[in-house]
Amino acid sequence: MSENWAQMKELAVEWMMHAGAMLKESLHDVIAVETKSNPNDLVTEMDYKVERYLTEQILRTYPSHHVLGEEEAGKDIQSTDGIVWIIDPIDGTTNFVHQKFNFAISVGVIKDGVGQIGIVYNVMQGEWFTAVLGEGAYLNGQKLPPVTETTLPEAVIGMNGRWLAREKRSGEQSLHTMVRRSRSVRSYGSAAIELAYVACGRLDSYISFHLSPWDYAAGLVLLNEVGVDVTDFQGQRPSFIRRSRILAARPGLHKELLSYVYNHEGFLK
Amino acid sequence: MSENWAQMKELAVEWMMHAGAMLKESLHDVIAVETKSNPNDLVTEMDYKVERYLTEQILRTYPSHHVLGEEEAGKDIQSTDGIVWIIDPIDGTTNFVHQKFNFAISVGVIKDGVGQIGIVYNVMQGEWFTAVLGEGAYLNGQKLPPVTETTLPEAVIGMNGRWLAREKRSGEQSLHTMVRRSRSVRSYGSAAIELAYVACGRLDSYISFHLSPWDYAAGLVLLNEVGVDVTDFQGQRPSFIRRSRILAARPGLHKELLSYVYNHEGFLK
Repeated sequence: MSENWAQMKELAVEWMMHAGAMLKESLHDVIAVETKSNPNDLVTEMDYKVERYLTEQILRTYPSHHVLGEEEAGKDIQSTDGIVWIIDPIDGTTNFVHQKFNFAISVGVIKDGVGQIGIVYNVMQGEWFTAVLGEGAYLNGQKLPPVTETTLPEAVIGMNGRWLAREKRSGEQSLHTMVRRSRSVRSYGSAAIELAYVACGRLDSYISFHLSPWDYAAGLVLLNEVGVDVTDFQGQRPSFIRRSRILAARPGLHKELLSYVYNHEGFLK
Repeated sequence: MSENWAQMKELAVEWMMHAGAMLKESLHDVIAVETKSNPNDLVTEMDYKVERYLTEQILRTYPSHHVLGEEEAGKDIQSTDGIVWIIDPIDGTTNFVHQKFNFAISVGVIKDGVGQIGIVYNVMQGEWFTAVLGEGAYLNGQKLPPVTETTLPEAVIGMNGRWLAREKRSGEQSLHTMVRRSRSVRSYGSAAIELAYVACGRLDSYISFHLSPWDYAAGLVLLNEVGVDVTDFQGQRPSFIRRSRILAARPGLHKELLSYVYNHEGFLK
């Protein structure tokens, strides 16, 4: 069966725009909540609310599709057969409640295990990163050029400082060496946004020791379109239905970074 | 002599807006330069160009004032007597050339060693952080509320991962402990922007082992207006004419963080 991926992407963007408006609206409540109770309750509420909204739209329009979400959708999904929407209603929940910016809605669509559509919407910055398999990746409608090779001393790496601050474990020293040899490191607190930043060249690599498919499904589709290599720390393609470590990097750099993180122990819960 | 600080701030904003347009314009050249030569040459060129432009405007309007800049202005300044403008034409030069976003123009004005005006302009995001001593701090014209007390487990700290990745030195372990006990860490690659983020509550603290007055002069004025404590690692007020380590944090948190970084050795060039 031949799908109309472009049309599916347009619908997804429409639903995500509405979901983004729900999140923006709720930020007024965050401010109210902060002064009297636990702001995490509001995050949880909005996570569920947005996931339910998106799930309803998807299944109403495409009853045969499946939805895998961070909160509740698709907890029984064991295979990537058919068409699966992998959604994160709020990627960067700490940013959402604490910073009120740099959070994203992330939607990926895969068919029989192959990424077809990837959309990362940085709500407060109004930045849309979109891709359809074979059609290129876009930032706010502008096509992103394919990436070129680079090396560690030229590379700006997205990686959270927490990975550098763990108790001494096997391999930690090589992470430290890697960072010292890089041009610089950055951390924005949203995997979806950081993968999108690799796609558009703001970062040359993004590394995380612990992510779930909804954090990176959309990002993987984006990165595939611009030629960024993405694997786990054994150099294997990350799973779309299980947790994974993620190493995304421009060609050349990916091989170099893999030698620092290869078989790195610890951290994966 | 009584100065019209509000008017001085308005003029500074006007000049910085023009300088920002120069930087935006030059980004087209960055893209051209990248493919054939060293983009750092362009950074240097634009750093000088914007610093000269701002210095000319300042001294034409206020001939008795002094200017201390990152590139060349005021290298002979030994005291903070009189009125000194402390300017960074591009704070976050790696971001400027590599990311084409998250760089800022930073302008602080001090009189006899006391910060009077602070302006941080995040050029690509269009965010203006402005403050005049005693008049409050503003983000795009909206007054920022005073900060409240917080604790380490609740705190999002701005700190570059490079400080966590150095060879084993005295105190490194306590930095790692500090990060593990925090809510999270972020790094954006521009001290001026990160200090401004503390002023508006996106970060609860910003820590750096190595900064110059033009990196933090404007930030210090902003932070003073909202009640954020700023010291070096000995708990002393940072100098406006010499390099300093910087620990900026909300009340309560500042004391807690100081115990982790107090007298920390190494890193300061």
